[in-house]
Amino acid sequence: MAITIGENSYGKQRVRLLRVARQDGRHDLQELTIDIRFEGDFETAHTEGDNKKILPTDTMKNTVYALARQRPIETIETFCEQLTEHFLENNPQASGVHVEAAETLWARLPFGGKLHAHAFTSSGGEKHTAAVSGVRGPKIVTSGIEGLVVLKTTQSAFEDFLQDEYTTLKETRNRILSTVIRAIWSYRGGESNYGTTWQGVRQVLLETFAEHDSQSVQQTLYAMGEAVLANFAGIREIHLSLPNKHYLPVDLSPFRLDNPGQIYLPTDEPHGLIEATLRKD
Amino acid sequence: MAITIGENSYGKQRVRLLRVARQDGRHDLQELTIDIRFEGDFETAHTEGDNKKILPTDTMKNTVYALARQRPIETIETFCEQLTEHFLENNPQASGVHVEAAETLWARLPFGGKLHAHAFTSSGGEKHTAAVSGVRGPKIVTSGIEGLVVLKTTQSAFEDFLQDEYTTLKETRNRILSTVIRAIWSYRGGESNYGTTWQGVRQVLLETFAEHDSQSVQQTLYAMGEAVLANFAGIREIHLSLPNKHYLPVDLSPFRLDNPGQIYLPTDEPHGLIEATLRKD
Amino acid sequence: MAITIGENSYGKQRVRLLRVARQDGRHDLQELTIDIRFEGDFETAHTEGDNKKILPTDTMKNTVYALARQRPIETIETFCEQLTEHFLENNPQASGVHVEAAETLWARLPFGGKLHAHAFTSSGGEKHTAAVSGVRGPKIVTSGIEGLVVLKTTQSAFEDFLQDEYTTLKETRNRILSTVIRAIWSYRGGESNYGTTWQGVRQVLLETFAEHDSQSVQQTLYAMGEAVLANFAGIREIHLSLPNKHYLPVDLSPFRLDNPGQIYLPTDEPHGLIEATLRKD
Amino acid sequence: MAITIGENSYGKQRVRLLRVARQDGRHDLQELTIDIRFEGDFETAHTEGDNKKILPTDTMKNTVYALARQRPIETIETFCEQLTEHFLENNPQASGVHVEAAETLWARLPFGGKLHAHAFTSSGGEKHTAAVSGVRGPKIVTSGIEGLVVLKTTQSAFEDFLQDEYTTLKETRNRILSTVIRAIWSYRGGESNYGTTWQGVRQVLLETFAEHDSQSVQQTLYAMGEAVLANFAGIREIHLSLPNKHYLPVDLSPFRLDNPGQIYLPTDEPHGLIEATLRKD
Repeated sequence: MAITIGENSYGKQRVRLLRVARQDGRHDLQELTIDIRFEGDFETAHTEGDNKKILPTDTMKNTVYALARQRPIETIETFCEQLTEHFLENNPQASGVHVEAAETLWARLPFGGKLHAHAFTSSGGEKHTAAVSGVRGPKIVTSGIEGLVVLKTTQSAFEDFLQDEYTTLKETRNRILSTVIRAIWSYRGGESNYGTTWQGVRQVLLETFAEHDSQSVQQTLYAMGEAVLANFAGIREIHLSLPNKHYLPVDLSPFRLDNPGQIYLPTDEPHGLIEATLRKD
Repeated sequence: MAITIGENSYGKQRVRLLRVARQDGRHDLQELTIDIRFEGDFETAHTEGDNKKILPTDTMKNTVYALARQRPIETIETFCEQLTEHFLENNPQASGVHVEAAETLWARLPFGGKLHAHAFTSSGGEKHTAAVSGVRGPKIVTSGIEGLVVLKTTQSAFEDFLQDEYTTLKETRNRILSTVIRAIWSYRGGESNYGTTWQGVRQVLLETFAEHDSQSVQQTLYAMGEAVLANFAGIREIHLSLPNKHYLPVDLSPFRLDNPGQIYLPTDEPHGLIEATLRKD
Repeated sequence: MAITIGENSYGKQRVRLLRVARQDGRHDLQELTIDIRFEGDFETAHTEGDNKKILPTDTMKNTVYALARQRPIETIETFCEQLTEHFLENNPQASGVHVEAAETLWARLPFGGKLHAHAFTSSGGEKHTAAVSGVRGPKIVTSGIEGLVVLKTTQSAFEDFLQDEYTTLKETRNRILSTVIRAIWSYRGGESNYGTTWQGVRQVLLETFAEHDSQSVQQTLYAMGEAVLANFAGIREIHLSLPNKHYLPVDLSPFRLDNPGQIYLPTDEPHGLIEATLRKD
Repeated sequence: MAITIGENSYGKQRVRLLRVARQDGRHDLQELTIDIRFEGDFETAHTEGDNKKILPTDTMKNTVYALARQRPIETIETFCEQLTEHFLENNPQASGVHVEAAETLWARLPFGGKLHAHAFTSSGGEKHTAAVSGVRGPKIVTSGIEGLVVLKTTQSAFEDFLQDEYTTLKETRNRILSTVIRAIWSYRGGESNYGTTWQGVRQVLLETFAEHDSQSVQQTLYAMGEAVLANFAGIREIHLSLPNKHYLPVDLSPFRLDNPGQIYLPTDEPHGLIEATLRKD
């Protein structure tokens, strides 16, 4: 029996890092979790136990800390780029290097009408993400958002859908719409300011979600992606993944009460999941 | 062998509810998770399988929805009081009823310089909590905060501590201090505005955390509790539970780099835990 | 305003440890997570930032590793006792020391009809727990079980219960009964073999759950506790906490199908919770 | 600006189901969680809010329950196939249907030296998984294992690896090796007994893990995959994903103690991740 090794990779996951920049009168901080993955010519490690081409994943972790010390982290996108370049330059045995980062978002505490110089609160589960895929040639950079929870109490309908023998869902002109936005986008060419663009994309996604008169999650997803592509010339493509977090109207009729859009049951499972990639031609 | 039944209770946990109040031009919402527990004379249920005194936990759940429909939920504290009173009145077999609620905090989306009328984002893992313990007599109301993550990058020391043969920790004048605030407080008498007080307590806790020149988590905990007791005449007692979420300086010396308070390793475990109750005399 | 400090404590949570005992031809292992808490005279740490009586929680962690190296860990109960004694002896400022441990259960891999000498699999989420509360005097030892998931498909009824205006639950002679057993028990005096007793208690709990003709979770809880107290002379008291994990029959009538106890919806929330302590007189 | 919709899909996630087969004297049960995803011609739903081709995800959920009632679930693989076929037959607008299932593993309780007829315990976090990808033509079936935690205390080395300026890891001839096995395999043609094959693959993976004299996780991964391909003629390809869950020797030298492979720190993060696909030629 002949066996071939197909796609394979190895690396380090969940390398965590807090970086503090201490200027007089103002500290800035960045908290990151980084995943690193190498692809390449690692066949003899698998078949012969030969580790001569294997850079330990422990070294990948050390590299994150050493590089973070030597230069400021401008954005998580540029930090992923630096890590990718470092690994490609120093590891000819690697044909591809993939680095992903997720930034835990901290906000300055309000204090006496201003923002505090060195005290922060975490703004919850939302993360700014980035990924760089480097091969021997151009790198692909993506940015993203994860865990951005939103809900609207009106302007969401779902009607006139396909029905079969197992359909019991009722049509509705007015339902709760709630999702956890996950977005990943890529750029046409070089991007000069990832941070500003990220803030802008986030605001466009939120405003479109808020104002869209929704006939379905699909239609709202499309409107959100379209708005991003229309407003940001440098963005080439966006992928959106929107779970439909169902809030179900509670049937109060056994208690001789009506329920005019007032009392809902929040549910985690099952949930819908709507995904699409939109591209500029 | 004679067996006696000691403390015992039963009830329903994690009853979830979204309530929407729909005024013209503005929707308000409250998302709650509620736990209910009955104590009382339930011995024959245990020993004889006699369910005649057992109100089903399913009915407890239904009651939450029915009461939420019939009156506005002013605050989670008053809703817990209403549920407690309802259950005590209708269930003479219960000697004590305990209702706890946790509110998921939603914030209006910013839109065109204003706040949106009906679109919201979840501000993360922080929760407003409340609990009411009702017996045949006065009820005890508490309010609380859970999951409020904070971090400061300076004004935190830990020095001159007790040392023994297993002590390796180095003294430090300047460390990262991070915690997840959990606070529970109770009132002197009737409280007229739970919501305003909750916002006020939260701000005092955050400001004290930010400004305190900390010699230890214990000292900061005390300062935070003292500030709440000093600023809110109606609050009689506060319990604070502060995990010490360690951010450890990374040793970069193997790479011939120093680390002047810049690169840290965030850790989840192990962690310190500091707890105390403070009372007004 | 005079403020007093009430109950207060500090310590280290989630100290993790794997201990391997390497005999010829057979390795044994224990994986533990340990929580340590000191109570005592720590007022000046709170009020003055005086750390002279504060043993760092980092030292508590180091002590766990050092003691684990110097003696075998016979059972988690005796290891908690050793830690408690060590801390009480060396820390006169502590009036009480509380140590809890949870053991991750590993089972040997079957291999060639026997059990492997040094390869293991984790038997899931179930944990053996223990706690020792030490003061200046006798110590209290408890043992426990957490995360033991069980389910039976028959011999569980719930009928003839209290009904009110909000009751919609139907009586049933035959429902699914599923719970996650959490048990904690304490001893009459010295116990010579915690490990054997723990295995015995676990088996009695499981057998009683399996064979009991249940009229309610309360009745099954009582039968389980009674069986433990009856079978183990050295056990004085047992606390059982049994969530009622509802498996709801799916209504298939919209599809013109019946459902004779065949198709159920597993749910996580809401869930019932039944708790009681049983004692020998 | 012209926008095109690229890859897109929608469906229902986490549809949960318990199925009980009640024979005289013996009940069998299967607990499943199912994900369903449709691909196809859904452009007008996105761009025009036209739902005429959208089968509600609620109907997908109903279909799971209705089909589970009408036929026995032989294996999760055949149930995924039935669901895929049903959806493709009834939904010409769908060009592809993807159904995945994960089975929570329950084991009969031991009772009086035998296995109980209707009482079960959950054997933890391990799951049997399956996936069927159906298009207009042949379907692809895969089977898998998730969450199978293993650990060995010896016969694991990592030496002679690539070193660079950031390498600090020491070579070791004898380390703890622990992973959480995730495996997915596909078949050459029709498979007649998914259940027996699954048990066989699981045993081969465990035995190879236990007995392999490991020079690296890569080499052990290869040996495990090779053993499966060699022992099961009907399996064409296997993908293995093995996190390297590090157990780090604790440095006890500050306490003047050695550590001869006895005391380790279990860690969750960071962790290595080794992945590869092996194929028969």
